[in-house]
Formats: sequence, structure tokens, C-alpha cells
Amino acid sequence: MVSSYGIGQFHIGRLKKGEDLLRGLTEVVEKKNVRMGVLFAIGALSSCTFAYYDQVKKEYRERFLEKRVEILSLIGNVSLREGKPFIHAHILIGDESGIWGGHLLEGSKVFALEYHIVELVGSPLVRVFDPETGLFLWNF
Amino acid sequence: MVSSYGIGQFHIGRLKKGEDLLRGLTEVVEKKNVRMGVLFAIGALSSCTFAYYDQVKKEYRERFLEKRVEILSLIGNVSLREGKPFIHAHILIGDESGIWGGHLLEGSKVFALEYHIVELVGSPLVRVFDPETGLFLWNF
Amino acid sequence: MVSSYGIGQFHIGRLKKGEDLLRGLTEVVEKKNVRMGVLFAIGALSSCTFAYYDQVKKEYRERFLEKRVEILSLIGNVSLREGKPFIHAHILIGDESGIWGGHLLEGSKVFALEYHIVELVGSPLVRVFDPETGLFLWNF
Repeated sequence: MVSSYGIGQFHIGRLKKGEDLLRGLTEVVEKKNVRMGVLFAIGALSSCTFAYYDQVKKEYRERFLEKRVEILSLIGNVSLREGKPFIHAHILIGDESGIWGGHLLEGSKVFALEYHIVELVGSPLVRVFDPETGLFLWNF
Repeated sequence: MVSSYGIGQFHIGRLKKGEDLLRGLTEVVEKKNVRMGVLFAIGALSSCTFAYYDQVKKEYRERFLEKRVEILSLIGNVSLREGKPFIHAHILIGDESGIWGGHLLEGSKVFALEYHIVELVGSPLVRVFDPETGLFLWNF
Repeated sequence: MVSSYGIGQFHIGRLKKGEDLLRGLTEVVEKKNVRMGVLFAIGALSSCTFAYYDQVKKEYRERFLEKRVEILSLIGNVSLREGKPFIHAHILIGDESGIWGGHLLEGSKVFALEYHIVELVGSPLVRVFDPETGLFLWNF
């Protein structure tokens, strides 16, 4: 299951202190009309909301961390879900006391954030519900 | 020691539940005839096999984790080893109880996996044995 | 706050055993005259220097780890600071005993290192002091 794309523009920028991380990135993608892409980011948060997927119960277990942390890694992609650009990203955060990570959710507050979004040229992948995993996966 | 490439296509897709992560990615690379590239992935595994390199003994210490985890990050590259496309990747995985990571080996079972492979245009780098480190490094 | 770029060349290579990680990457960027870019790396270190940013005191807390570790992830970017190409990168490292990470500083000794630098085409972003965060952020 593979689809091949040409490479369009690279969108680079930052979010402001106090912005919501996932909403902020989604606004960039909407503004630039990226419907298929790959994204990376580093920065720092003053709080973070993420989730682990329970593969047996087929549901996300959410976690909120009220901590000032570095964003050590954020890797994700943009594709279509219900006709709109949708970001799926996994994040790793940490401070002196530990490292945490998971599936990025809304509810993470930016301290500083530098993002790098690769826009891809070609027919966007579309997420549909996959009963086997309980996830919205790309429809090939 | 640097080599410069043009950027070809971006191959994006997913692996299926139950596939072996490293073998599955290698099959994509072979199918698409990527001989030089960079790759990223996120997803989830139902078990993971990875290794740490012992820099003194010059050997990999393998670790198998029978755990349902998120793939928080997977960064790697494709080049040639013994004339064939070879993937070198490092992985970070985690759940509520912790984060682990290392050099990705065969023996990791996919729950869901989204990969992003950048195909590069130019003469592929070739891995040869490097006696100083005991690793197969790019031959410049 | 977003700026869009064309994609130039992809520079791939390795650093040698004993090199300083951040200085070595900076030398590649200078040699190839990359003024705007994105970078990724994996490898191994024999020691690592990194920092956490204290968002309240607005200062970096440095940490030196005398440990042989894998570089599990290194994500960063290149832009201009004081007229020169400047690398901002976050690193994740680990061994059997744990995972650490932070803002990469000089003072990390390479065992083996494979880097991937995407050169971007367009007017480079410039870092200036931002009083609100105490960081040098991109000036939009």
C-alpha cells in the first residue's frame, strides 16, 4: 500500500507562545492549503495532551501533563479526513525528570515551536475507518 | 564526508496489521526501486525488536519487547549494502510505563504503520565494513 | 508566521569517530553553503551535551552525559543568526538504562553519525532575540 508524490513547497515557521500546538499546525496547513504532506517540529511546551492507543479495547487513553517540557521530536503527516486536511502526529517531550510521548491531541500549549511542513503534489490519501484496528487509516 | 542528491518522489503508505516492520519497509523500497533515500514513520507495534551497539565489544545487544506500544519516532535512510537497498533506522517506542529505543531489527510486529520515504536522485552511497567502529558505514 | 521555500539539494553524509556532533554538522552546512534547511540524523555518541530551557528563569540548564549511547533521533533546522548559518536541533539518546534528550549543544562526541540535510531555496529566516521567551526566534 504505497502512493507516490512529487515534492511541492516546504513551509517553515513558528507558532506563538500560548497557541495550541495541534490547532496551530492545523491552521497553517489550512492557510497554505496543504492536503497531503509530511511534518516535523521541535520546540517547547508549557503543557501537553497526548494519548496511547489501547490496541485491545480499540480506544485512546488520554494523558495531560502540566509540565514545562522540550519537544524533542514531532513527526507527522497531513492527509484528508472527512474532506478536510487532517494532521496525524506523534510527539516526544521531556525534561530532567523524564521523557514522555504519544499521539498528539489538542490541548498542548506552545512556549516556542518551529515547524517544517513538506507539501506533496498528487492525489491526497484519504482516511477511512478500519474495523480491524479501530483507527482511521489510509484507504488504498 | 558528504554527497549531494536531487530529490525524487516521496513514497507514502502504510503497512498492514501483523506485518514485520523492517521487512515491510524493505519490501516497499525494493518494489519502488529506491536505492538512496531517507525515511520516517509513526504508528504502533504489538512487539518490537531492536538493539544497542556496544561500542567497546563492537557488537549489537539485541532486545525484544513483547509490548503493545506507540512508534513515537522512526528515522532512517536507504543506501546500498552488498548491492542491495538496505534500511538503517532508529526507533523510539513507548507506552504509559516508559519509552524505549534503539537500532531497528527484524522481529517487530506492526499494529498500524504510516511511512514516508524520500527517494533521492544520484549515485547511491555504499556501506562497507569499517574496522574502527565495527560497523558498515558509507564509503566516501 | 510561515515562509515557503523551494527544495534544493539533499546533502547526506557521515561524521567521523571523535568529531564534535554540533560542530561537525555546522561545518557541513558551512561547506555546502546551506543558509536555510532542515536536518535529521541517527548514529551513536560516546558522550553527549544537551540542555533544557527553563521557561521561567529564561536560561538553559546544561547537562553532560558521559555515556555511550545511540542517537535515537535528531531533528533540527538551519537558518541565519548574526549573519551566519546556525543549527537548532533537539536530540534523543539512549541505552539499556534509559532515554534522555534536549537541546543539542557543542560537546557531544561522535562514535558514528549519519546526517540528512535538506537545503531550501528562498530567503533564509533570521533569528532575533525575543524578549517574551528569552530565545532567539525567527523574525517574521
